[in-house]
Amino acid sequence: MHYGTMFRSFATALAVGGALSLAVAGGAHAQDKRVNWKMGSAFPSKLVQLGSLGKSLSAKIERISGGNVRLKFFEPHALVPPLEMFDAISAGSLDAAWSTPGYWFGKEKSLALFAAVPFGPSAGEYMAWMYYGGGHDMMDKIYAKHGIKSIMCGVIAPEASGWFRKEINSIDDLKGLKMRFFGLGAKVMEKVGVSTQLIAGGDIYPALERGTIDATEYSMPAIDLNLGFYQIAKHYYFPGWHQQATLFDLMMNKAKWDALSETQQAQIEIACGDNFREGLAEGEAIQGKALKELKAKGVQIHRWSPEILDTLHSAWDEVAAELAAEDANFKEVWTSLQAFRAEYAEWKAVGYLQ
Amino acid sequence: MHYGTMFRSFATALAVGGALSLAVAGGAHAQDKRVNWKMGSAFPSKLVQLGSLGKSLSAKIERISGGNVRLKFFEPHALVPPLEMFDAISAGSLDAAWSTPGYWFGKEKSLALFAAVPFGPSAGEYMAWMYYGGGHDMMDKIYAKHGIKSIMCGVIAPEASGWFRKEINSIDDLKGLKMRFFGLGAKVMEKVGVSTQLIAGGDIYPALERGTIDATEYSMPAIDLNLGFYQIAKHYYFPGWHQQATLFDLMMNKAKWDALSETQQAQIEIACGDNFREGLAEGEAIQGKALKELKAKGVQIHRWSPEILDTLHSAWDEVAAELAAEDANFKEVWTSLQAFRAEYAEWKAVGYLQ
Repeated sequence: MHYGTMFRSFATALAVGGALSLAVAGGAHAQDKRVNWKMGSAFPSKLVQLGSLGKSLSAKIERISGGNVRLKFFEPHALVPPLEMFDAISAGSLDAAWSTPGYWFGKEKSLALFAAVPFGPSAGEYMAWMYYGGGHDMMDKIYAKHGIKSIMCGVIAPEASGWFRKEINSIDDLKGLKMRFFGLGAKVMEKVGVSTQLIAGGDIYPALERGTIDATEYSMPAIDLNLGFYQIAKHYYFPGWHQQATLFDLMMNKAKWDALSETQQAQIEIACGDNFREGLAEGEAIQGKALKELKAKGVQIHRWSPEILDTLHSAWDEVAAELAAEDANFKEVWTSLQAFRAEYAEWKAVGYLQ
Repeated sequence: MHYGTMFRSFATALAVGGALSLAVAGGAHAQDKRVNWKMGSAFPSKLVQLGSLGKSLSAKIERISGGNVRLKFFEPHALVPPLEMFDAISAGSLDAAWSTPGYWFGKEKSLALFAAVPFGPSAGEYMAWMYYGGGHDMMDKIYAKHGIKSIMCGVIAPEASGWFRKEINSIDDLKGLKMRFFGLGAKVMEKVGVSTQLIAGGDIYPALERGTIDATEYSMPAIDLNLGFYQIAKHYYFPGWHQQATLFDLMMNKAKWDALSETQQAQIEIACGDNFREGLAEGEAIQGKALKELKAKGVQIHRWSPEILDTLHSAWDEVAAELAAEDANFKEVWTSLQAFRAEYAEWKAVGYLQ
């Protein structure tokens, strides 16, 4: 219970440090050194949710600190290439990054479980595990080994499952396809015979047009619409079993984070908390309209059959077991998540209307 | 788009007010008068979610303002009786209150729609409508007529539908029962022949024991467990069709809110935003365990049959139509919510695994 611990520490500090509180009464924060950090982003600000939540975070921190803490948003590649941000923050040459733990599978396989889990939890359950089921604490430890402090900093809407040129009626129809796919879901697709590759957002459309790939997943309706995939592939599949919720985090150089005042740390932490409100509300608000527009453009919206979903789910169970056998951290995190989900399932089964 | 507007205003202020920003660079907030407000609560702090989120809000605002803004939490009745807080804030004799808009049906019927709606949206959809569908703006206008500024300040888990001494197998089994019930849901229960009354949380157990009431709803498993209703009524029904999500707000005297600096306003607003993260995560985390404990105590968990839910839903449609005919604000808000939900339904139907 990461946040719980922080609150207790704060309460203790208040109790024993009353004198300090009074000393700064006339001008709160006057003792705090100004923070001017550069925050690299893994996503362009023009992409709603993926990038806009990072811009928003920067504005919120500035507002609630009265300008004392600034994390300036830089577009991808403006400082360092997105995939190099982990090392740059670790080394201290970059202050902070707006990203998702799913980007660092190559560094720590387990971090992918803090970003999006195939057939995994949606937003509320995921947040419950992160903040009250031990998730955030485990993530803290894994990042800390690399000199990185990371704070969970928002959630976005479920993704779509992908765009296909042809209708997919069975797992056999998937076999042999070349498809752009991201993260743990890509490993599942490989298991069922899809040849996957990771292509950056801006390069997907031309690859699809040229036929380098037959199909692609990228994001949610409101984002995919703007990337124009519907002009080439008319079959849009749901649900995005591979990413029912995607978590974003704010990574910071740990030594720099440790040097912040308690007030500054709280400002960053609480602004990140508000990003959950914004990401969830916005993500739910903008898909219905996008789906309507896509239908009007002739896109056919499909739901995977239960059989196809079952096969993909079994493939994911295999992938998860393999990764847990390879990596001790992955095993620990995966075991924790599974145990939490079993208890949650009792509530999910009765608590909701639909 | 309430928040969007605020961000634009802030950006403008930065653009034209660069000199001011620089002037306070050495000690941000030094110009801000210290705020020491009293915040009455509608719920005791010992009740998880209902009360604890109010305590948490107070701590968050204090932390991110470095102690400059304090909204001291007062238990119910410590300042004024909960149901008198609306008038007290309006008159300026109370600074602020931790409550839910559902309490003010007697003042403004429409405010109930910003708290919990029978057969209404769950957390994500509700937040989407509030922040991106015009909900918060409408609520602002309604409160403003009474000299009150209110900020949405958190969401809690779906409620259970209630505790019954006997199994309920049809709507006929409900007829004639005396039941404690809250809010708009109570009007629905009246429609199907239940005699409802509103009893404060602490008085429910003795009323149930004495037989003054036959049944009661109160809250979610994690809260109901501690109130001990299972010792008398063994049949616990789900889902809580009357409150799939309950929103909480921070009410403030509008003149006092207007006198705050932009930084102070942002601190309150963003701390309220983080309460959504906390309320949602905590609410989802604590019910599974509570359900297990209740089952171990011999409680029988039931789900309403589809027929009973359909009948209750029809009764709610009648209630909503009656209220819309009586009250112009109710009609406007209800119409807005219905339109938003129709668009959302397209997304809900495809986007989610379950």
